[in-house]
Amino acid sequence: MKVYEFKGFPNPTRVRLALAEKGLFDDVEFVQVNVPEGEHRQPAFLAINPSGAVPVLELDDGTQISECSAITEYLDHAKGEASLTGQNAKERALIAMMQRKVESGFLDAVAAYFHHATDGLGPDIETYQNANWGERQKEIALKTMGWMNDKLADQNYLAGDHFTVADITAMAGFDFAGFAQIETPANLTNLLAWRDRVAARPSTKIAA
Amino acid sequence: MKVYEFKGFPNPTRVRLALAEKGLFDDVEFVQVNVPEGEHRQPAFLAINPSGAVPVLELDDGTQISECSAITEYLDHAKGEASLTGQNAKERALIAMMQRKVESGFLDAVAAYFHHATDGLGPDIETYQNANWGERQKEIALKTMGWMNDKLADQNYLAGDHFTVADITAMAGFDFAGFAQIETPANLTNLLAWRDRVAARPSTKIAA
Repeated sequence: MKVYEFKGFPNPTRVRLALAEKGLFDDVEFVQVNVPEGEHRQPAFLAINPSGAVPVLELDDGTQISECSAITEYLDHAKGEASLTGQNAKERALIAMMQRKVESGFLDAVAAYFHHATDGLGPDIETYQNANWGERQKEIALKTMGWMNDKLADQNYLAGDHFTVADITAMAGFDFAGFAQIETPANLTNLLAWRDRVAARPSTKIAA
Repeated sequence: MKVYEFKGFPNPTRVRLALAEKGLFDDVEFVQVNVPEGEHRQPAFLAINPSGAVPVLELDDGTQISECSAITEYLDHAKGEASLTGQNAKERALIAMMQRKVESGFLDAVAAYFHHATDGLGPDIETYQNANWGERQKEIALKTMGWMNDKLADQNYLAGDHFTVADITAMAGFDFAGFAQIETPANLTNLLAWRDRVAARPSTKIAA
């Protein structure tokens, strides 16, 4: 398998973490797409993903899968039991719900702040910016951090007692928050403890 | 099971269609939440879904599942073989990819146009509007319509030869486009034929 990515960027990190958690990291060849220089908007890459976003997983038969949640579906069902996305209807639904809430309310919100209300990747890449939208999304991201902190009062991981794709999505959100210089409020102690817990997993080192 | 919804609105329609496709429609009690009057922002409903969005599926054990894609995961795995979300790693990934692209690039884009660049649900509900963002999202929605039309040149449904959750998401997008008075360009003949094909399915009548 191949993964088209830009190493160190938040969404590629989601796939690296999923690969590492599933023991599939060494089965993949990584192909770098130079996002800061706009390679993701060139015809060659748009033919791979019309959305112009990394990462993309390419299977050995040539099938190209974009969207991180879809890539994780593949990886989680490609080897062993599904451990990241759940094994029955209720588990699957609760994990998908949490993944989506963290994606839209935190990761995507932080990304919108970064791309719209800061210099982002610079004027050549940020060809449309809407600062008011970006600021609004920052408020949403901070609110979601508080909500995640409350969830983590009674459980070790975002979707319950086990590490799942929801935790991966949130970790990528924190990567993006780093780029965007959004600090995690110090009173969110459950969330900060969760970050340390996830960062201590072997997958974090493998993916780095 | 219960479904909290506002009948006729696009996201609730997604769950109605999934229930109908799975033969589960008569197993559900529908509870109306008066969104145009702001009932979704009252504490009673925010306790059910902190995002303040309908629909929410409540299982008989009291578990509450929000986010349409998560609800569909539950319904598709709760009865019979998974028919809407795929049965193996590759099918699951390709359907999840298409569902997400249609959701972000069409349904959510049309919704953003409606809520931000039109009167939407009126000043009591639309307490934050960003018209420039809404107009931008309309452009994205129209671009995604063209992309869906291209996909449908070689296949009957958005994720391939079978009806899936991606088609449900797109149909909800067309419901929203109706509210927002976004016309489907007449030259998108594959897309218009697909709409007729989906509208002719028994589930459309059951869900109505």
